[in-house]
Amino acid sequence: MTEMRAQKTIGILGGGQLGLMLSQSLADLGAKVRILDPQPDCPAALRTAFSRTASFTDEEALCEFFQACDRVTYEFEHIPTTALRRVLDKTDSHHKLWPSLSVLENSQNRIAEKNALTKANAPVADWCEIRNVDELCQQKRLWVGKHRAGILKTARGGYDGKGQWRLSNEETWNSAIAELTRREDLFPLVLEEKCQLLSELSVIVGRHPENGIVTLPAVENIHVNGILDVTFYPPRLPAHICAEAKQIAEHVAQQWNVYGLLTVEFFVVENSAGTKLLANEVAPRPHNSGHVSRRSLSRSQFDLLAHILLDQPCQIREPQTGGVWAMLNTLGDLWGQGSAFWPNQLTSHSAVCEAMLYGKPEVRRGRKMGHVILNGSSHSELDKHIQFLRSTFPEQKGV
Amino acid sequence: MTEMRAQKTIGILGGGQLGLMLSQSLADLGAKVRILDPQPDCPAALRTAFSRTASFTDEEALCEFFQACDRVTYEFEHIPTTALRRVLDKTDSHHKLWPSLSVLENSQNRIAEKNALTKANAPVADWCEIRNVDELCQQKRLWVGKHRAGILKTARGGYDGKGQWRLSNEETWNSAIAELTRREDLFPLVLEEKCQLLSELSVIVGRHPENGIVTLPAVENIHVNGILDVTFYPPRLPAHICAEAKQIAEHVAQQWNVYGLLTVEFFVVENSAGTKLLANEVAPRPHNSGHVSRRSLSRSQFDLLAHILLDQPCQIREPQTGGVWAMLNTLGDLWGQGSAFWPNQLTSHSAVCEAMLYGKPEVRRGRKMGHVILNGSSHSELDKHIQFLRSTFPEQKGV
Repeated sequence: MTEMRAQKTIGILGGGQLGLMLSQSLADLGAKVRILDPQPDCPAALRTAFSRTASFTDEEALCEFFQACDRVTYEFEHIPTTALRRVLDKTDSHHKLWPSLSVLENSQNRIAEKNALTKANAPVADWCEIRNVDELCQQKRLWVGKHRAGILKTARGGYDGKGQWRLSNEETWNSAIAELTRREDLFPLVLEEKCQLLSELSVIVGRHPENGIVTLPAVENIHVNGILDVTFYPPRLPAHICAEAKQIAEHVAQQWNVYGLLTVEFFVVENSAGTKLLANEVAPRPHNSGHVSRRSLSRSQFDLLAHILLDQPCQIREPQTGGVWAMLNTLGDLWGQGSAFWPNQLTSHSAVCEAMLYGKPEVRRGRKMGHVILNGSSHSELDKHIQFLRSTFPEQKGV
Repeated sequence: MTEMRAQKTIGILGGGQLGLMLSQSLADLGAKVRILDPQPDCPAALRTAFSRTASFTDEEALCEFFQACDRVTYEFEHIPTTALRRVLDKTDSHHKLWPSLSVLENSQNRIAEKNALTKANAPVADWCEIRNVDELCQQKRLWVGKHRAGILKTARGGYDGKGQWRLSNEETWNSAIAELTRREDLFPLVLEEKCQLLSELSVIVGRHPENGIVTLPAVENIHVNGILDVTFYPPRLPAHICAEAKQIAEHVAQQWNVYGLLTVEFFVVENSAGTKLLANEVAPRPHNSGHVSRRSLSRSQFDLLAHILLDQPCQIREPQTGGVWAMLNTLGDLWGQGSAFWPNQLTSHSAVCEAMLYGKPEVRRGRKMGHVILNGSSHSELDKHIQFLRSTFPEQKGV
């Protein structure tokens, strides 16, 4: 008996580095891949033959895209949902979008996200909603009086530290109030207690309606200026904390009924009761902190999502050995101006097992241009290598 | 000081799976990649934006290709050299072709190959050239009389067991003579002594004019019907045999002045003097047996070649642990008819760390459709997994 299945066509909204790496995993499994992105020279467009340049609000393009695909996912959560919803209704394609529109909407709005996390019994930092400047001034009196440090975040659209204000004293409150008085469009906001972080973790859960849950082991993240800088695997944290993070993330994925990936970022904080986890952000997609899985595990986050989208079960094995892996994000800052090219001393370094440039046409400060994955025998060894690798970039020579 | 280099454009003649995987390593390093292949739906064309459909003898297309590229390599050695030589002369591009035209010519002709191997002090099996049917009949008398087993191979164009005749007795000789009497175009031929093989090995050497030699550790190969079936790393052979293979391969790469990769395939034979290596075939390009390096080493054969083509030094680390890796070739035979798709039980197997379909539009017997890489703790464990993986294909169910 020859049992054969037709190749499925999987669509990805967004052709950045996440879309590119997902498209590779999908193609390796035999899927046809289509990408829709507003930028004709986005990373995935340069490396796949089935790309379409269109805005995420171009309903005609979206209709055609959903009709051509058996299933569609997205590589970032800031996709406008009004046009998308109309297209899903019109083409009767709600079942094709994984994760679903409601998961996408939950993760687009910090207020909905926090409410949904709380509903799923996930601990979050103390927070309140701020709907206008008056409410902001009210909170100022409460927080400054108690010497409480806070972070103010726009409910929508912020990522990588954008749309955030750190509030530590009267001066920082006043400057935020002054700025936001001129920007009423940025409301509603979320005011969060700024916690003293011991560490940061993230967990990526993969979930399929029939094949169940596969969760990647937790990784440790280090952010600089609100942007992920380094990820370590395994994390330098007790096993019970990692197990708790895994449990919370799986619970959220179940409660939200996620088909696809869900990444949950955690703060590790310490209070009188001991070490505690707080769920910080949720992303229903592959995550920057998951890149390390491309070398540290038997299958990567992209392989896992590709399997799920193709209705194939997936097993992921942790390494049986004591090695340590690190992923170093390389932002445009490292190159300064000009075109991005790896320094020879970086690519030839013996600890480097992956150095991937995303092919972005322009170097910009704060822009993720590529990543490096290192393997070694200890965290401190990798720390030294990372310092050295940074020093190999032309802009860092004098640092 | 901001020191920046322009991105180089690297051309690949041939867009099969080797060209595809090389193009990915090149793009990860920031290079622009161009592919030239006669097939519009070749594997690399479906996954890169810079492909050109043209015959390898289309001099106009070749001229344009060499002019657009800073350096050009090839993914298989059976490229007609007459048109290529004219184009290299006309566009003054001999320096752009890595490995050089003379290396390509050496490897296209078994007679030139064997002479060059001998000149480089590499041991080869006893052989002689057969220029016509008369010489073939002459040899028949000598070989059949001595009960010597031989293999007859066309000097040009044979690969994966094609263009070969096994000569073990009068009957097989007579049938070869009958066939070749009608096919004088297949001469000259090479008649080789058929050795009793203990095992087969291959070694991939990377060489750059300034950065020197980087050699991948030897792997063990198992062929079925003349086509590579399984590669193991590390090989089940004594370290001194692997070291000798490495030394011979490096010597050949130096003698031939290879810039790029050179793969040398060896027979391991036993005679009265003990275990001995015989160099069998040479390929100046990435090799099927090198796929396992994508998971077993810190950098793969494709990464190594990409570094060389971009004038970047490269270090490759062997794993510090005791794990074993295997690469299983999956030929069209496994699927029978219809479109190739991985069986669920294969992709979900916990030992599988890579399952890559090449995206070939048609399944054919003997055609390399994809490969699987497995990781485990022993050769015998992986042997069992391989048997199981084979049984998951629809055509193999009743076997």
